[in-house]
Amino acid sequence: MEIENIKSPQDIKRLDIKDLEGVCASIRAKIISTVEESGGHLSSNLGAVEIITALHYVFNCPADKLIFDVGHQAYTHKILTGRLDGFDKLRKNGGISGFPKPEESEYDCFATGHSSTSLSVALGLSTAAKLKGEHYSTVALLGDGALTGGMAYEALNEIGSEQLPVIIVLNDNEMSISKNVGAMSKHLTRLRVSKRYAKMKSEIKRAVSTIPLLGDGIIYLLEKSKKLLKRIVLSNKMFEAMGISYYGPFDGHNIRELVEVFSQVKNTKTPVIVHVLTDKGHGLNSAILDPAHSHGVSGAVKSNGKSFSDILGKFLVGAAEKDDKIVAITAAMAIGTGLEEFAEKYPSRFRDVGIAEEHAVTLSAALASAGIKPYFAVYSTFLQRGFDQILHDVCIGGYPVKLCIDRAGAVGADGVTHQGVFDISYLSLIPGMTVMTPSDGDEFRQMLEYSLEFDKPLSIRYPKSYSIDRSHAPIEYGKWEVLRKEKSNVYVLAAGSRAVDIAEEASSFVKINTVNCRFVKPLDEPFLNSINKKGNVIITVEDNVRRGGFGESVLSYLNSVSKNESAKVIILAHPDKFIDDREIDSTLSSSGISAANLTDIVKNLE
Amino acid sequence: MEIENIKSPQDIKRLDIKDLEGVCASIRAKIISTVEESGGHLSSNLGAVEIITALHYVFNCPADKLIFDVGHQAYTHKILTGRLDGFDKLRKNGGISGFPKPEESEYDCFATGHSSTSLSVALGLSTAAKLKGEHYSTVALLGDGALTGGMAYEALNEIGSEQLPVIIVLNDNEMSISKNVGAMSKHLTRLRVSKRYAKMKSEIKRAVSTIPLLGDGIIYLLEKSKKLLKRIVLSNKMFEAMGISYYGPFDGHNIRELVEVFSQVKNTKTPVIVHVLTDKGHGLNSAILDPAHSHGVSGAVKSNGKSFSDILGKFLVGAAEKDDKIVAITAAMAIGTGLEEFAEKYPSRFRDVGIAEEHAVTLSAALASAGIKPYFAVYSTFLQRGFDQILHDVCIGGYPVKLCIDRAGAVGADGVTHQGVFDISYLSLIPGMTVMTPSDGDEFRQMLEYSLEFDKPLSIRYPKSYSIDRSHAPIEYGKWEVLRKEKSNVYVLAAGSRAVDIAEEASSFVKINTVNCRFVKPLDEPFLNSINKKGNVIITVEDNVRRGGFGESVLSYLNSVSKNESAKVIILAHPDKFIDDREIDSTLSSSGISAANLTDIVKNLE
Repeated sequence: MEIENIKSPQDIKRLDIKDLEGVCASIRAKIISTVEESGGHLSSNLGAVEIITALHYVFNCPADKLIFDVGHQAYTHKILTGRLDGFDKLRKNGGISGFPKPEESEYDCFATGHSSTSLSVALGLSTAAKLKGEHYSTVALLGDGALTGGMAYEALNEIGSEQLPVIIVLNDNEMSISKNVGAMSKHLTRLRVSKRYAKMKSEIKRAVSTIPLLGDGIIYLLEKSKKLLKRIVLSNKMFEAMGISYYGPFDGHNIRELVEVFSQVKNTKTPVIVHVLTDKGHGLNSAILDPAHSHGVSGAVKSNGKSFSDILGKFLVGAAEKDDKIVAITAAMAIGTGLEEFAEKYPSRFRDVGIAEEHAVTLSAALASAGIKPYFAVYSTFLQRGFDQILHDVCIGGYPVKLCIDRAGAVGADGVTHQGVFDISYLSLIPGMTVMTPSDGDEFRQMLEYSLEFDKPLSIRYPKSYSIDRSHAPIEYGKWEVLRKEKSNVYVLAAGSRAVDIAEEASSFVKINTVNCRFVKPLDEPFLNSINKKGNVIITVEDNVRRGGFGESVLSYLNSVSKNESAKVIILAHPDKFIDDREIDSTLSSSGISAANLTDIVKNLE
Repeated sequence: MEIENIKSPQDIKRLDIKDLEGVCASIRAKIISTVEESGGHLSSNLGAVEIITALHYVFNCPADKLIFDVGHQAYTHKILTGRLDGFDKLRKNGGISGFPKPEESEYDCFATGHSSTSLSVALGLSTAAKLKGEHYSTVALLGDGALTGGMAYEALNEIGSEQLPVIIVLNDNEMSISKNVGAMSKHLTRLRVSKRYAKMKSEIKRAVSTIPLLGDGIIYLLEKSKKLLKRIVLSNKMFEAMGISYYGPFDGHNIRELVEVFSQVKNTKTPVIVHVLTDKGHGLNSAILDPAHSHGVSGAVKSNGKSFSDILGKFLVGAAEKDDKIVAITAAMAIGTGLEEFAEKYPSRFRDVGIAEEHAVTLSAALASAGIKPYFAVYSTFLQRGFDQILHDVCIGGYPVKLCIDRAGAVGADGVTHQGVFDISYLSLIPGMTVMTPSDGDEFRQMLEYSLEFDKPLSIRYPKSYSIDRSHAPIEYGKWEVLRKEKSNVYVLAAGSRAVDIAEEASSFVKINTVNCRFVKPLDEPFLNSINKKGNVIITVEDNVRRGGFGESVLSYLNSVSKNESAKVIILAHPDKFIDDREIDSTLSSSGISAANLTDIVKNLE
């Protein structure tokens, strides 16, 4: 069957199992050609083709609920649910999202993007079915990486306790984003050798049956011991101990086996976990060879900017050479945040904690409390998970943890769930937190150098890339840098590289003073006082939401110190809504964070 | 030995083990008398007396690091580390904190207050020791409730993987704050009956030794099966699977046994867990009888206010009677948030998920997505844990989850780690979130009634108690209520009961218009427009930090719409620092959130 003819999962249900292999091959080819063009998650999607096809063959979506953890491996699902057309524009404006999105299809029952939420969602949907007296199956598909995130355990705990028929499909590909970490992975690895135990069990059975004269007592005991064996052999003791029946491991590329096991568990009355082993990047040699690098692919249209992550990586390697107290921490994002070389050179001072931002933040706090210098490199959107830990563990204690916050601001193709536009707000509301943002790579290097001796909590936030390097004055705590001084009563307070670029671009058309606001918190109060005069216009620019952002903090400060007359403040920032624009430039300009808008505003000042 | 003579743990190290029992008895008596007077955590501290005494007997603090999870059970530790004097003023200004606090003592190696952080801290301190070439033991003492929090697993995962000598002491008292929940508790309960298995094991051994003619094969197999037995019998398979050696369970009130096992594990080179069983409230009959109610004791000086929690509880019980879609959720705070009666009357629609705010929020989102009406009742400070989930799972999807946020604003005796003064900021920065706050109990009832049909994410935040009920106009989306209309150009925009009380009190001394800002977000823009005139003064009052709070959002709105002249805005809110004041009134007045300050400000307006 041509995949062009698959308009809904109903169309594959009519096929014979043996024909599903052909469908999978076509889907795989389509994913490869599309991701090469549009970018996206390649290897994880190639690994999940058979699982998802088998799920749709067995279950009846959208009546049955299929929940994707993270959601980055849902491409097969999108193709099978009538979205082949939009798939050509994957992750682009006008095309389909790279993640499940209920607005896009009734088959996407819950929006996702961040990790380890699927079990909570599945339990919620299963609970709702029970309360409403409805009968549908609830299936959560999650990768083994999701099991490094704490909230998965919070949910597992309750799933075991509630005993609702949640079906958990664990897609175990032996790696999350960079490499699998932690004891849980080792545990799953151990399970993989369970055939040995199965053999042993049958041998015991044989042996016992040939032993004569055994009393009831000993038969009972051996019966018990077989039960215990079974628990470990056929079951994952941990899941079983939680009251979740374990099935597996199965070959995740054998569609016949998958259809069989999914059919078996479909009508379960209690929670089950189906453990499936897959090759990430199955069917694409280069992805198997280097799955970490084909995890996220940027697409044919490459970004032209220079990478902030590269600067962080190089800096930390150099600094670690001089100072053996420097430690780099990542939460499953070693490559994305630029820490690959550090990990190789200083394995004992590098920690990839898995998708575990909460732990990463508190671990950093403890390290810092003991005189170690931890740098936690993390994407802005994922650091949201560590909000309480930043406040409670880092800032109350005032420990010098350094948060290197990548992918801050608009993120483009990853869309609504991944926007890094909240960090200035959620970080600056925390007492004792210093927030910096570099205007370019040179300044980022300066900031990192400055951070080495900075003895309080510090965040440095930056987008993926920047345009040009400028030269800068040395960094002084809380001091801004006047980049462009003109005879003008307009002061553009630009926070971050994108904001500075916008101001610089606008300065070709209108006369403005450009201030590089390296410190988002604290504000440069003396400087603000010096320009706080009636007739002056202060325009703040930031790639962050307005609510609680940099502009509002400038406004609040000026309001608190102004007796009567004060400068006028205009804030350029993202509005109070979620943004699903897939291009950075259009995201910014829709929000008025653009040289064109800045120019217009300045021109229209009386 | 009199506990008055214990100036440091050194003083008990000189004692014979058998004398420690007397020390424990004296400590227990001291805790009981103090908590009766000052309030605090009674039963959990009584349960941990022997464990902590034994730990200090065996380990050498402060060189060795003793980390308390949550920290609410550290009273014995405080008494043994030279703080008996301050203990009389436990949780009061000038006395010692109810939680570990490094500023208070070198024996408190890390500040705590929230749950499930101790394993991350212990791993951090153990890692630091290794990196610095220092040799100290790192001990984390945590209750079984802490194991319902996800970040504990993130840390366990890494502890298993790193194999550093972290010593985990699990104080298992069969209940966290209200009652133990989830599969993990069941698992621990199963472990408790392990003596049966031990007996079985020895029976097998006997049986095998009497069976003649067994070949090597079968002996090997039975050896294996014994090994597996042992794993489950003597070990907790889950911890062992994670590479963490398991010891226990031990009697947590047998100090000789505790000293022995702690001495055994003291010099471990790899991670261990010591599983200790205790009676919460050991030594106090009433606490054993009803440990949930003696978990947190308010002290002899009772609050005179009326309880918002009671209103929530009664309302939900009534509403649930009429609407079977209503579900109440708590994260180990059923009693504190007023849900006891609901839990009893509607067990199938009540969920205590344990100390698992992340899961609770996403579970609520999923329930709401399926047409159920979830009310998650939670303390403001603990909801910080669910920040990402509120943003990513509730608000991006726009699901009508109702967050009932108790203990918002200043909290008094619990101090710095428990202040609920950040929620207005971290909630209002999230697009799509509506934030309300009631001025009294009557209005809270109205808001809850209103919430029943509200079809978007909604937060209602309120402190523990309020003073008087007033009568109110019906609630309309986004509309404020003018409570007091005077011939005055001063408008006090009061958000929440404490703010309204302050405004009303001030109105006896100065002429002001008092506006009850029921909606913190969205703002009542038409009303703000109507008072936005030169000469008018707008004073915002809120029990929340200024950064990103209500006042700044009012200011930002007015700034964005004002062409030239605008009203003057004065913001009364908490400053940008952590507050460890232990009394609500002094916390508020130190921040200028008081009738006196408001009166002064109005008097001093030109």
